[in-house]
Amino acid sequence: MRLRNVKNADVILESSKYYLKEPNLYKGNFDRLFGNKNNIMLEVGMGKGDFLIGMAEMHPELNFIGVEKYESVLVRALQKLENKKLNNVYVISKDAIKLNEIFDNEIDTIFLNFSDPWPKKKHYKRRLTYRDFLSVYEKCFKSDSHIILKTDNDGLFESSLVELSNFGYVFDQISLDLWGSGLENIKTEYESKFGNQGFKIKYLNAFKKNR
Amino acid sequence: MRLRNVKNADVILESSKYYLKEPNLYKGNFDRLFGNKNNIMLEVGMGKGDFLIGMAEMHPELNFIGVEKYESVLVRALQKLENKKLNNVYVISKDAIKLNEIFDNEIDTIFLNFSDPWPKKKHYKRRLTYRDFLSVYEKCFKSDSHIILKTDNDGLFESSLVELSNFGYVFDQISLDLWGSGLENIKTEYESKFGNQGFKIKYLNAFKKNR
Repeated sequence: MRLRNVKNADVILESSKYYLKEPNLYKGNFDRLFGNKNNIMLEVGMGKGDFLIGMAEMHPELNFIGVEKYESVLVRALQKLENKKLNNVYVISKDAIKLNEIFDNEIDTIFLNFSDPWPKKKHYKRRLTYRDFLSVYEKCFKSDSHIILKTDNDGLFESSLVELSNFGYVFDQISLDLWGSGLENIKTEYESKFGNQGFKIKYLNAFKKNR
Repeated sequence: MRLRNVKNADVILESSKYYLKEPNLYKGNFDRLFGNKNNIMLEVGMGKGDFLIGMAEMHPELNFIGVEKYESVLVRALQKLENKKLNNVYVISKDAIKLNEIFDNEIDTIFLNFSDPWPKKKHYKRRLTYRDFLSVYEKCFKSDSHIILKTDNDGLFESSLVELSNFGYVFDQISLDLWGSGLENIKTEYESKFGNQGFKIKYLNAFKKNR
């Protein structure tokens, strides 16, 4: 995603009730932050927030946390959230490889939507489904591991299937054409743009039994 | 595949040295039939034989057995084989669900090339990667299970990934565009026709450790 510098990003972030400046303070206690025991769904790389906000509106019975590395992107999501009245969503700024500093066995599902595909072979270890990231996610999951991924990128989809299966995940559902599949789907900004240009959206729902 | 009736199919089959009329006689002893201990590769649904013959020619260090349910199709493969001098290939006529009547822990790899996708939901149990078929294959494999699949059909590819992973297979390699992947590839007749029309060929290489 092309990043534009946003003036007063800090001010916008810190004035939003949806933004957690020090999320590690809630480690192991996110259910208290939400005030209930509902499942917590984590979107890693939430971008401008259309998916996160759409899901939070559609599923009041679930809690949502969005993670975005780039604060200048996060600001766009917070601007959209400003007019909403949601009590089941927060956003944080963090690198995915450090998520175990924030979550301790309390996440139900991780969403990876249109993550950077890192198409060059030498960069494959940076993909968010590479084994090092999967190991970090393990420490975040409450019990079983559950990842739902969407992408328009063939290379990322192929390597994700290989990495996930070798890590012990099995696939509950796979679609090479999510829009044509009839599955429930909240679109991201990126997805709307490229899906409307005719790119097929690939989808996988992967599960790993841990206990 | 549209089946044309072939005159004298019986005669053509039985006069070919590549055709095994009673393959169950070799059960557990296919290495003796080949006269060596080379790995035995099985193509289930070999059709007119281009893949099987091409592979047997390219890999003299391996043995090949082609299985085709329809004798009228098998005849076309035997006609192609007639002018070849190969000692590492045989073909048989058998329904895939009965392969355990013929093989007893002696197959290294199963190839599934452009199997009937059975696109209607109510027919999913007929797909050659449905769990009932995978159970039959288990009795055929020598040690670890190893399946390589090619298809142009999204539905078959999606359900194969789901079935195989739930059966305990992991994926060594996956491609959503085999022709563009640089992987070694002998084309089937069907593949050449539809690949040349622009259909993307999907590929998976699945492995299950048994011992």
